[in-house]
Amino acid sequence: MMTNFDVIIVGGGPAGYTAAIYTARQKLKTLLLTQTSGGQMVYTDNIENYPGFEKISGVKLLEIFRKQLSQYSDAKIIEGQKAESLKMKDQFFKVTTDKDKYQGKTIIIAAGKVPRHLNVSGEKELENKGVSYCPTCDGPLFTNKSVAVVGGGNSAIEAVLQLSKYTQEIYLLNIGPTLSGEKIRIEKIEKDPKVKIIGNAQVQEVFGLKLLEGLRYKDTKSGQIKDLKISGMFVEIGYLPATDWLKGVVELNKWGEIIIDEKGKTSLEGVFACGDITQVPYKQIVIACGQGAIAALSASNYLQEQQ
Amino acid sequence: MMTNFDVIIVGGGPAGYTAAIYTARQKLKTLLLTQTSGGQMVYTDNIENYPGFEKISGVKLLEIFRKQLSQYSDAKIIEGQKAESLKMKDQFFKVTTDKDKYQGKTIIIAAGKVPRHLNVSGEKELENKGVSYCPTCDGPLFTNKSVAVVGGGNSAIEAVLQLSKYTQEIYLLNIGPTLSGEKIRIEKIEKDPKVKIIGNAQVQEVFGLKLLEGLRYKDTKSGQIKDLKISGMFVEIGYLPATDWLKGVVELNKWGEIIIDEKGKTSLEGVFACGDITQVPYKQIVIACGQGAIAALSASNYLQEQQ
Repeated sequence: MMTNFDVIIVGGGPAGYTAAIYTARQKLKTLLLTQTSGGQMVYTDNIENYPGFEKISGVKLLEIFRKQLSQYSDAKIIEGQKAESLKMKDQFFKVTTDKDKYQGKTIIIAAGKVPRHLNVSGEKELENKGVSYCPTCDGPLFTNKSVAVVGGGNSAIEAVLQLSKYTQEIYLLNIGPTLSGEKIRIEKIEKDPKVKIIGNAQVQEVFGLKLLEGLRYKDTKSGQIKDLKISGMFVEIGYLPATDWLKGVVELNKWGEIIIDEKGKTSLEGVFACGDITQVPYKQIVIACGQGAIAALSASNYLQEQQ
Repeated sequence: MMTNFDVIIVGGGPAGYTAAIYTARQKLKTLLLTQTSGGQMVYTDNIENYPGFEKISGVKLLEIFRKQLSQYSDAKIIEGQKAESLKMKDQFFKVTTDKDKYQGKTIIIAAGKVPRHLNVSGEKELENKGVSYCPTCDGPLFTNKSVAVVGGGNSAIEAVLQLSKYTQEIYLLNIGPTLSGEKIRIEKIEKDPKVKIIGNAQVQEVFGLKLLEGLRYKDTKSGQIKDLKISGMFVEIGYLPATDWLKGVVELNKWGEIIIDEKGKTSLEGVFACGDITQVPYKQIVIACGQGAIAALSASNYLQEQQ
């Protein structure tokens, strides 16, 4: 027998938690359904641009969001389940996960995004054997070792800043000629003696017998092929929205992001979306939170109209 | 001689402060120009739906925002000035206030909204003599007295909750038959023995010799005219966007709100907007903050494109 919820929120990052706080405050029976809580936020050690906190770790901010939500008895959190399909049946939306089924009168999708892979030889085989997509999780494993970070934007820079605390030497391999991202952070890593910034670098393969031993890259300006001896490689080349399970269900743009209007509505009536999974630009925590509030209030209005 | 700024942010509520934190972190020379800081937020004693704080007053949250911004030497705050015009001249935007002139390469408008008046006889004459638009500011003046709150939505309910701490008796006069707003709060005031909720009530005039003594309302269902003896009246019937000075400068909708796209762009290139002054729905602190971040990052991109 399935429990019926007023609102099922799929995804437990800042957008999902904010949406849940808002729907619970509307006394809507709310299910927050997620694989893990925190989303991309937990990969950041020092959040300095969330208004209200001069400096806080993503893990700590998540803890506060969770405590804030847990005040409301109308909200239930289920973790450890991956949503696999969304269907409408008998006026209810059914969410099927890898473990169970849930039924809601309205749905808010806040499932965020997943890291992009380089798709080079050796990458898959050496994942978790030196190849990582999460500096916060795996950084300490490379204490006093040489590592590479691949990428040229804010998340690559953030990775370098984090890894600098542990590692001996960091190569930052950027496929473009110059870094993009917050100037205040770029300056920090440019001053860091541990960091070697290599521009126009295209990673071609990674290698190692049991563990990662090195990578090969092409200098796209000179055409030269070069090898680096490293124990860890952190891939920070962006993210893909977690919308595989939603193809044909709600309208997506060419990047796979859910298209929403300014009220958080998707193309399917009764289904709302918020956070990094949508086309809304810039992918910041506070933006995701703001969008979570919008989706929640729209879902609440939708339920009132249905009555 | 005028100082040139990269970004002038007009308005110092949550949207303006967030925008300033973001532009200052981009090392943009930022001016936050505002009449007063905090916006509508400071009128709220108990903010419970800003993610990251289970309960905080608007004044305290403003204090944190201000401290967070003051870390950045690129940001300057000027308070006590009201923006009166915005013009483009020689590739710069010029903001004229009631006291001075400022020049910026790009503008972010975050000037929020101002309370709507009832426009009934006696209202203007008795303003600050019993008639108030700010329960947080003026509530304690009515300790152990009878007051009326006029309105039927979230801000009226919030006003009642605040005033219940001081006053002896509160009439909530709602022009509609039922209250709208967060159920969790409606239930609270319904249970409060101090509160008398009167639906279908249209306020017709307020009276008093030197100070407010009472109000007259019409029961729109029965047609009856009734008088209430009160010492204070709090008007909470919504807000108007502070866009009088922007007519003909940027496109407004029929409610006077600035129309922005999903990147916070207004109809005038180089001018961005965020927060309650825009058409973005629901007027919540966290939504204003999210929009502030979007406008700031778009302004930063605009400046990079100009270089």
